[in-house]
Amino acid sequence: MPSIAVDAMGGDFAPEEVVKGVAQVSLRTDIQCTLVGNEQEIQAILDRVPYNPERIGVQHTTEFVTMAEDPKVGLRRKRRASVLVAARLVADGHADAVVTAGNTGAAVIACTQCFKAIQGVFKPALASVYPRQTEYPGQDQLALLLDVGATIRCDATELVQFAIMGSAYARHVSKVPNPRVALLNMGVEETRGGDILVEAYHRLKNCRGINFVGNIEGTDLAKGKADVIVCEGLLGNVALKILEGVAEVVVDLAGTARRESWRWKLGFFMLAGSIGRLRDLTDYAIYGGAPILGFEHVMIKSHGRSNARAVENAIKVAAKAVRDGVTQEIAAGIEQV
Amino acid sequence: MPSIAVDAMGGDFAPEEVVKGVAQVSLRTDIQCTLVGNEQEIQAILDRVPYNPERIGVQHTTEFVTMAEDPKVGLRRKRRASVLVAARLVADGHADAVVTAGNTGAAVIACTQCFKAIQGVFKPALASVYPRQTEYPGQDQLALLLDVGATIRCDATELVQFAIMGSAYARHVSKVPNPRVALLNMGVEETRGGDILVEAYHRLKNCRGINFVGNIEGTDLAKGKADVIVCEGLLGNVALKILEGVAEVVVDLAGTARRESWRWKLGFFMLAGSIGRLRDLTDYAIYGGAPILGFEHVMIKSHGRSNARAVENAIKVAAKAVRDGVTQEIAAGIEQV
Repeated sequence: MPSIAVDAMGGDFAPEEVVKGVAQVSLRTDIQCTLVGNEQEIQAILDRVPYNPERIGVQHTTEFVTMAEDPKVGLRRKRRASVLVAARLVADGHADAVVTAGNTGAAVIACTQCFKAIQGVFKPALASVYPRQTEYPGQDQLALLLDVGATIRCDATELVQFAIMGSAYARHVSKVPNPRVALLNMGVEETRGGDILVEAYHRLKNCRGINFVGNIEGTDLAKGKADVIVCEGLLGNVALKILEGVAEVVVDLAGTARRESWRWKLGFFMLAGSIGRLRDLTDYAIYGGAPILGFEHVMIKSHGRSNARAVENAIKVAAKAVRDGVTQEIAAGIEQV
Repeated sequence: MPSIAVDAMGGDFAPEEVVKGVAQVSLRTDIQCTLVGNEQEIQAILDRVPYNPERIGVQHTTEFVTMAEDPKVGLRRKRRASVLVAARLVADGHADAVVTAGNTGAAVIACTQCFKAIQGVFKPALASVYPRQTEYPGQDQLALLLDVGATIRCDATELVQFAIMGSAYARHVSKVPNPRVALLNMGVEETRGGDILVEAYHRLKNCRGINFVGNIEGTDLAKGKADVIVCEGLLGNVALKILEGVAEVVVDLAGTARRESWRWKLGFFMLAGSIGRLRDLTDYAIYGGAPILGFEHVMIKSHGRSNARAVENAIKVAAKAVRDGVTQEIAAGIEQV
């Protein structure tokens, strides 16, 4: 059974929600968790909820990187920061993967400092699942977008490697048998987007093991054209946050309207299901989290606003990635290119 | 009174909707229009609608670039393409600005071939208005995003120039007295996004005449944080199309739901206003169009799906830009930097 090191101090609602999430996992699965953080605080929360003590360990540390902190500075000063201690547990073989809802930059740096890069991988990628419209019955409701912020700019080789990493992850964790991979670009023609994207297009077209469907434009990101969407970090980060931002505005509009009059109230009651589908777009709890890929071990970064349910899902996703040997499959894929 | 050369053959619904739009303009304003395209077809449409013949001229040409055509190839083969003839009318002093709903690439190339760049401007920008949530009463419902596709990558100087061009346009055409300018980035800190964005940040901070409010993330694009958002073309194009795509999905979801049951029907009837606000996001008719900035003359590229009302608005926007001397103000701004 997989063993997951969980950063108890990372996230807007840490340690409370993180510890509660781990407690739930201990009762519902056979996953072993090690909570990394202030032992006293952790125990105080555990004392208030049901949990299985045989499946939970605690690794004490008082330091942690806050959400607002500069991650480089934070980790340089705090060598016993919870996310770093969690990553070291994995590097030393005491756990198989890390889950953190904390500072994203700190999570990526902790991987870089503690984990070996998979042989041949140039840059790691932060991959995020996001909900989109489906195109056919049975299509997964989530697509995978990478990189969303571990890098800024990328060359063609790095983009091809992201495609390999994302495909392996989607196959196993999202259970999409033959994920359709696309390049995010400013047009669908293979000549678009400048030298790097044109080169990446041609290499992906000829890449065995990758089901490349070509370029997609921003318009298609909210639709079901591709399962794995590849781009440099600057573009992916902005794209993901636009999707989040629009969903928030829609939910906000709906909320305002609801307060306005009985007409709106009745209307929204009638539409509860539809608004629910929109609200899902902003409900990070159901997605599990964003894997940091390219290292010999997996770290899952769940959303900063994660509640117990989100943490629980992130831990399950991490365990699935470990059980299915996602990093080994990525290594095999990179070797073939 | 300004005189506008209108590409009668450009757009998904050309020449029908374009000619009808011009007919409306001739009755409601003192703007002089020259329709550029097939004279027989144009006259046949004019014969079916009311219009003021004193305000409409026709410049005959049978060639035009289709929406699907490669713009470079199309314009090389068709030296009498309608968009090119319209731009030449302006360059030769027979009209003041161009409006086209046709192929975007062809519009930009026609500007490059026929117009002089404003002294000191390195790259033109395609700027697009898009609707977003407002933050305070009286805030303009539209923000301006540039570049959305005339460029791919940009250096810091080019981004600063885009800020100057966008500010001048927003001041005059959108009537925002002191437009707030932001850089689209992957984080709000001034150290984010790599060398080019960091340099652009510092130069914009110290740029007189620019009300620079810093970096904004994708999340804020749908909100009201800034009035003019500056970025390279690859990023801006993807960003704009994500906004369009999400809006389409929401409207589509609403449409599907509406067909499903009486419950939905009643609910949507109650919510007609709210859904209307969302539908506005996909209704290009009300925005007027995207200016191509950086040349001594203005070209307004209205959406490919423009109907008569959209064409009418684009012509009014072009006339306003001419009347207010937007290009002269851009030239003065560029000179100062």
